[in-house]
Amino acid sequence: MKRPGGRRPGNSETRQAILSTARESFARYGYAGTTIRAVATAAEVDPALVMHFFKTKDELFAACLSFPPDVLARMPAAFEGDPARIGERLTRTYFSLWEEPETGMALRAMLSSAVSHESAAQLLRGFLGAALLAPTAKYLPADAPHLRVALATAQLTGVALARYIVQVEAMVEVEFDALIHAVAPSVQRYLTGSYPPVS
Amino acid sequence: MKRPGGRRPGNSETRQAILSTARESFARYGYAGTTIRAVATAAEVDPALVMHFFKTKDELFAACLSFPPDVLARMPAAFEGDPARIGERLTRTYFSLWEEPETGMALRAMLSSAVSHESAAQLLRGFLGAALLAPTAKYLPADAPHLRVALATAQLTGVALARYIVQVEAMVEVEFDALIHAVAPSVQRYLTGSYPPVS
Repeated sequence: MKRPGGRRPGNSETRQAILSTARESFARYGYAGTTIRAVATAAEVDPALVMHFFKTKDELFAACLSFPPDVLARMPAAFEGDPARIGERLTRTYFSLWEEPETGMALRAMLSSAVSHESAAQLLRGFLGAALLAPTAKYLPADAPHLRVALATAQLTGVALARYIVQVEAMVEVEFDALIHAVAPSVQRYLTGSYPPVS
Repeated sequence: MKRPGGRRPGNSETRQAILSTARESFARYGYAGTTIRAVATAAEVDPALVMHFFKTKDELFAACLSFPPDVLARMPAAFEGDPARIGERLTRTYFSLWEEPETGMALRAMLSSAVSHESAAQLLRGFLGAALLAPTAKYLPADAPHLRVALATAQLTGVALARYIVQVEAMVEVEFDALIHAVAPSVQRYLTGSYPPVS
């Protein structure tokens, strides 16, 4: 719809539109399957404008993964509180992020791309380190805190992959709360169980 | 090395060489990042020869995922025996497949591609159904056997993703046996624990 007076959408609006289109492309086709030209076409702008805002595909990709600070804070916040329920809080927070449209798309872009492209995998490792490992280590037992978080993250990521990306039937059909109850005890064991964690 | 008499490598040898190159490309760049032309160049053959053997990229991809029957049989075989140790047998068998060069590459190709391409995801779902769900359901409790296998598979896949693909530091550094001991109890709980599985 044309606005009265024909004012053009602002810079920040255009940038957001490009970002949202790019996020969808990285989520659907991965890093290798996404080009600046295709993003420009889908966002109905000139490729030069995409380059103006983001310079390179790597920078565009990094921008797609930059979650708002309040979203980023939700995972570390889930570590706070009763240590015996840390698995449930973390699992619920993580899958809630996947269920929300915008963060879900960003997470999907991150995972789809990290799997098939080394520079995306590097970004994901950096993100996990800065956003998850560093702020949460203080809540964990002193033995192998990084391996604990890595095991818990791998558990959560594997389920997200099956439910939201590969869409394995049984995982898509299970209800949200049943999924939390199924997965939370494993996350709890990795984070606070005896190490090496055995049953 | 040239053979005496200069005999050209047979058809089956050339086909295998193309397959092995393609598997590496799908593993590294995913489905979208792999082209028949690039595979031909890397295998030092004409693209027409790749087309002659495999017709389409989808068929080439499917061929890359066709594990030898004895390899395919190892996962269902791990379900047999003492039900209380099913988690350990399955976890050990699964990660052994990832550690072996050829099957590791095929699994990596499957996972890298399934994440960023729908037709690859379809192939993976079909593979999981035919190779894992169908032959193993008989070993499992009657309540929700498909969800049980899906949860166990998601757990194993998540760890494989972190260790062999994204290469999260703590997961790469952990020793093979320590990894089995860490992950097996979760797999056991998903497969034989009370449902919905709570701690």
